[in-house]
Amino acid sequence: MTTTEAPPGAGTGAGPGAGAADPAELVLGALRRARVAARALAPATRATKDAALHAVADALVASAGRITAANATDLTRGRFVGLAEGLLDRLTLDEARLRSIADAVRAVAALPDPVGHVRRGSTLPNGLRLQQVQVPLGVVGIIYEARPNVTVDAAVLALKSGNAAVLRGGSAARETNTVLVEVIAEALEGAGLPRDAVQTVDAAGRDGVGALLTARGLVDLVIPRGGAGLIQRVVTEATVPTIETGVGNCHVYVDAAADLDEALAICLDAKVSRPSVCNAAETLLVHDAVADAFVPRLMTALAEAGVVVHGDLRTRSLTPPAAAGALAADATDLDWATEYHALEVAVGVVDSLDAALEHIRRFSSQHTEAVVTRDITVADAFVAGTDSAAVMVNASTRFTDGGEFGLGAEVGISTQKLHARGPMGLAELTTTRWVVHGAGHVRG
Amino acid sequence: MTTTEAPPGAGTGAGPGAGAADPAELVLGALRRARVAARALAPATRATKDAALHAVADALVASAGRITAANATDLTRGRFVGLAEGLLDRLTLDEARLRSIADAVRAVAALPDPVGHVRRGSTLPNGLRLQQVQVPLGVVGIIYEARPNVTVDAAVLALKSGNAAVLRGGSAARETNTVLVEVIAEALEGAGLPRDAVQTVDAAGRDGVGALLTARGLVDLVIPRGGAGLIQRVVTEATVPTIETGVGNCHVYVDAAADLDEALAICLDAKVSRPSVCNAAETLLVHDAVADAFVPRLMTALAEAGVVVHGDLRTRSLTPPAAAGALAADATDLDWATEYHALEVAVGVVDSLDAALEHIRRFSSQHTEAVVTRDITVADAFVAGTDSAAVMVNASTRFTDGGEFGLGAEVGISTQKLHARGPMGLAELTTTRWVVHGAGHVRG
Repeated sequence: MTTTEAPPGAGTGAGPGAGAADPAELVLGALRRARVAARALAPATRATKDAALHAVADALVASAGRITAANATDLTRGRFVGLAEGLLDRLTLDEARLRSIADAVRAVAALPDPVGHVRRGSTLPNGLRLQQVQVPLGVVGIIYEARPNVTVDAAVLALKSGNAAVLRGGSAARETNTVLVEVIAEALEGAGLPRDAVQTVDAAGRDGVGALLTARGLVDLVIPRGGAGLIQRVVTEATVPTIETGVGNCHVYVDAAADLDEALAICLDAKVSRPSVCNAAETLLVHDAVADAFVPRLMTALAEAGVVVHGDLRTRSLTPPAAAGALAADATDLDWATEYHALEVAVGVVDSLDAALEHIRRFSSQHTEAVVTRDITVADAFVAGTDSAAVMVNASTRFTDGGEFGLGAEVGISTQKLHARGPMGLAELTTTRWVVHGAGHVRG
Repeated sequence: MTTTEAPPGAGTGAGPGAGAADPAELVLGALRRARVAARALAPATRATKDAALHAVADALVASAGRITAANATDLTRGRFVGLAEGLLDRLTLDEARLRSIADAVRAVAALPDPVGHVRRGSTLPNGLRLQQVQVPLGVVGIIYEARPNVTVDAAVLALKSGNAAVLRGGSAARETNTVLVEVIAEALEGAGLPRDAVQTVDAAGRDGVGALLTARGLVDLVIPRGGAGLIQRVVTEATVPTIETGVGNCHVYVDAAADLDEALAICLDAKVSRPSVCNAAETLLVHDAVADAFVPRLMTALAEAGVVVHGDLRTRSLTPPAAAGALAADATDLDWATEYHALEVAVGVVDSLDAALEHIRRFSSQHTEAVVTRDITVADAFVAGTDSAAVMVNASTRFTDGGEFGLGAEVGISTQKLHARGPMGLAELTTTRWVVHGAGHVRG
């Protein structure tokens, strides 16, 4: 184990931004090997894939010593460069966390195989037999932050859906990811699957990301899992197919016809139950007709929960003195546009449903919006008037989640409209193809 | 009507590459109006949309004089600048063609509405009611060649699926498209739908294409319908979601276990029945074991059909003297990679199924491949070993078509893996969203 005096970057990984090879060549080489592996993986049966996933789970537990030693190196370097406590916590792996990650791998093994599922099929009038079959995408690249659990999670979701995974994790988790991928690859090989089905390109550094995003023909999909900055870079630079995930500026609108007890519970749940995630609410909008009755209760509850509030003038004026400590500066357009990811929220009063919809259209990231109302007309108009991946009627925004929706594990939450929208499960890691059987059919 | 002496560019449209306004502003303005129109269009019922489509069909026939006059201007300019006869033919509209276009519009009206279809739904264990509902994408941009029928076709498919369409047709059809879009917009308005639901941005010229491809947040999908050059430009420049369509380097593989009569019929149909389209075959591969028996018959039939053949050495040596006139120079890698779109084909002999698959993997554009065989093992291995949008067993490549597949009209054939693969019908012009109904549900 290294000491806190050790120079950062010691260990099995390459230095930041530079491996032995050219970063682009390193990535392209990995992608080419992944393509070959994907070809071997695509026809693998569910039984083979599940056995391999169980082998991965067992290997993660059995290799706990090796993994935590690498993790200690990352943590040492992380402290050396002054990573925030929250980031260090997300970076940390211990035996208990490894066991829980292994359990998650076994849970993925228990999910149905999306490959081979026939989405549509028919016999055409001319006798041609037509099937639209789910097949793996091929090679999937995933770019994410320094969270070693995502390394395992992304790898096994790709594997279960028959894809080869090329992973680019945050550089702060480099040593850990290197060992995790080694352990996974060894387990796959032991189970008769190609070890190149899971690879990391962390050693290629930042230049490697560019290579990954422009490797047309070598990668079938790149999924960025991270903040708005990463997603913006991906969108601008990518010439390969990508899916934008996880930017969630979610709203709760408390209507004039809301049950105010329900509204209070939903607002609190949406903000407080897990503020760091993308389905947490970032703005609460209250109809003017219930503002006098509701805002004081809301502000009191938010203050008690330790939430900092960016309120508009009306909200501030309705805040009871005991809750005034929760108030930050007046809400600005920047606040309405901000994903706080923390115990912090913007609160405003609107004078109509239309005003709420207008506000949401302007500031939403099209992840999840919620309305609280007992009025069917309002509920329907809110559903029709929003254009987000998910819309909740009398339920918390926090329900937008692959697990909650019954899709099993999720690879991310798509906020784009093509291919996948909302929680992406295993089916969203597949594509389809048309398989047509004839008996010498010609069109003539 | 103008004479052949008239200067090119006369008429209602703007000059090439320059309108009254800045090209980018012209496109962005159209997209902003389209966004507003899309909002009005999304909740339109099937009855409203179908009535509007019938109004469009009627208006096209009623406005035949106005449309053919504009078309004559385009044709005059086309002849003036020396457009090829084939392009002039595709550009030409007369009353008969307009009637047939109007019939196609009525056929789209008769298709089911994809909007509102519930793809998945369930009541979750906690009582939340979950629905994944098809909804319009919003604003769809379509870039295509100088084919006025595509202007109408693309507009009505977008309308039927609840989307606003922003069209960029080939500049040679500028006058015709301007009038067609005017006629459509007037009919929509008469039927109570927003006229901005269909707009053309031809006047913005080539710079307008760039503006369309980078208008993030203003356009939900851009579909290029055209040649490989256009698609390459779109992929490289676009920062908005796009779908690649229509590049078809399709193969037919005649296996050792083929019924040779079937094989001959399929090879001929795949090449000859309509050589200009993307699902026509461009390369025929013959297993060595049947080459002696099959290649002479194939070459004779191709020669009789007037097909120019780029053959490998074995094919040339097996060509009967009577068919030798069909032979062009030896097949090169360039030939294997070429989409001829004409009565021209590459023919090669391979010594195994694996060699055929290797060839296809190297040169295919992943549109459609076909195998002719009576051997189930070979058929299954061919299906598994190819990675194209469609694969045909004992049927012609020409069947990859929205109409043939029973999807109704098609907006193009996607050769990419995300969102839509193969023929894109109305459903592929929608996205989904999750609509969740609770009774005060919180996650806690």
